[in-house]
Amino acid sequence: MTAWSERELIRKIRQACNGSSAGLIKGIGDDCCEVEAHGAWLISTDTLVDSIHFDRSWHLPHLLGRKSVAVNLSDIAAMGGRPRFILLSLCLPEDLDAEWISHWLDGVLEILREYDCLLIGGDTVQGRALVLTVTVLGEPVGKGAVYRSGAKVGDTVWVSGPLGSAGCGLKLFAAEKEQPGLLDLSRWQSLLDAHLDPLPCITLGMELAESGLVTAMQDISDGIATDLAHICQASGTGALIHFEQLPFLPELRSATQVLGLKIEDLMLRSGEDYQLVFTLPMGCEKELVQLMEEKGRKVFKIGEIRAGQGVFLQTESGEEEISFQGYEH
Amino acid sequence: MTAWSERELIRKIRQACNGSSAGLIKGIGDDCCEVEAHGAWLISTDTLVDSIHFDRSWHLPHLLGRKSVAVNLSDIAAMGGRPRFILLSLCLPEDLDAEWISHWLDGVLEILREYDCLLIGGDTVQGRALVLTVTVLGEPVGKGAVYRSGAKVGDTVWVSGPLGSAGCGLKLFAAEKEQPGLLDLSRWQSLLDAHLDPLPCITLGMELAESGLVTAMQDISDGIATDLAHICQASGTGALIHFEQLPFLPELRSATQVLGLKIEDLMLRSGEDYQLVFTLPMGCEKELVQLMEEKGRKVFKIGEIRAGQGVFLQTESGEEEISFQGYEH
Repeated sequence: MTAWSERELIRKIRQACNGSSAGLIKGIGDDCCEVEAHGAWLISTDTLVDSIHFDRSWHLPHLLGRKSVAVNLSDIAAMGGRPRFILLSLCLPEDLDAEWISHWLDGVLEILREYDCLLIGGDTVQGRALVLTVTVLGEPVGKGAVYRSGAKVGDTVWVSGPLGSAGCGLKLFAAEKEQPGLLDLSRWQSLLDAHLDPLPCITLGMELAESGLVTAMQDISDGIATDLAHICQASGTGALIHFEQLPFLPELRSATQVLGLKIEDLMLRSGEDYQLVFTLPMGCEKELVQLMEEKGRKVFKIGEIRAGQGVFLQTESGEEEISFQGYEH
Repeated sequence: MTAWSERELIRKIRQACNGSSAGLIKGIGDDCCEVEAHGAWLISTDTLVDSIHFDRSWHLPHLLGRKSVAVNLSDIAAMGGRPRFILLSLCLPEDLDAEWISHWLDGVLEILREYDCLLIGGDTVQGRALVLTVTVLGEPVGKGAVYRSGAKVGDTVWVSGPLGSAGCGLKLFAAEKEQPGLLDLSRWQSLLDAHLDPLPCITLGMELAESGLVTAMQDISDGIATDLAHICQASGTGALIHFEQLPFLPELRSATQVLGLKIEDLMLRSGEDYQLVFTLPMGCEKELVQLMEEKGRKVFKIGEIRAGQGVFLQTESGEEEISFQGYEH
């Protein structure tokens, strides 16, 4: 193992930043970077801490690099925006393996290429803990950014894909770490992938923003219970979702059984799926379904916005309030 | 001591973010914040790590909050821009005193008010180390941002104020920590203040950018030797500066004597003064001096840009190369 060198890392970052891009006026190598601005910028920043937000014993650096960016891109997706630029602030322990951080950066650069997004600057410092901060800038598209606050009573509630996968993948890795070899993890590769390498719903977010159909949107980072409650709080409404309409991967059932967990806990309250939850006015359902068919995409209606407060779950045995029971960062 | 609570801290940040500001479309409380954009944005990010970039034993949280922002504002000043918005990413140890972080935030908000700048978002996470990341957005003014790369052979080199003060203040605090009571620190309050509470040269930076006079500019964060070398490298030139023209506070002489340090080492190679270094075309000197007189300001000519490579120091005994001997972060 060779410990990382700041000079070497900055050389690699500078090389990666070297590409020119429409809209970048001044890249790395000055006191600030400078970007063109038209209309508006969306900005978000997220910090990931070693042993708290990720576990290096199972998370390979290349995939973690991708995920470090993906969670930020997902915030832009949640506003229906197009990601354009990112900045990295890295706090790295002195003895961190040079190969680890190099592979992490490869993952960062790979996902940036996939989403046509550019690394334009940042800061690298030495510290006792490994702390990775990504700041992303994106542009609103279509009729502008979609906020959390636009949901109206009577709107329907939709999600972009299966719930609980990433949370279950995390539980599987944790179980394997505690008792290595007890489970055959390969049975649940899709759940493991959802945790290791989540894909932000950038294209869908932009399609929805461009359609002008959706009234409120956010990404599911803390679980649908908490994240839909954010929409309700911002919009001054309540919501009812139907358990039997919530999408999930078929593998989730066997994995939760083996782990001794309740499937509904993972679907409602586990985070990091990075799906989108959004609301649609009454009467627009047909138009949405048609748009999604054209794009070859499937989205799932899971409930309704209603008057009052709180998110409620409809099950066979009745209604139960589920808001604010999500995992809070 | 009460450990900090995330809920309480976020409540305080949300309250502080509540102010509306021209140009802010969507503040805290959504997946991203959204700002209006006209022409261009300048962006910079800096990370400060406990025990590496600051020492809590002598740096009170309120002043450290000010400094955490000041070092970022200084990057905007270095481009001649107007700072507008900041984002905070805080990694805080579980047992961090609630009062400490509350006072730190008070300092952040105080300096933001002084520079008419707004906190618009960020992220707060728990981690083993205290790591503070500030991202700042600013707007170019006048004829646009001033880069490092515009210096021409024959330009004169100027600095905005005394050198070595902050570096010497740091050495004084370190000496006091090692042997408490040995020195009477109160003799050097201005040096201590330069370390504890540096003031970014925002107004001067904007005046210089608006004047259209300066060809290159940067802030002195790593010492004039290193920072002027950055300008030379970006501009493809060399530079000669004259030791007897370098400004310093009178207290620097006695402090360096007592500490057993060479005064020239501190003036040339100690960081964090956050003065500006800039270059001026031949023949523009009179215009600059007149502008500075109008503004009631004093700046100092310290040398010339010349052909070749490297930064050289002219002393009584001749020329000596000083580039790349500064402290490198």
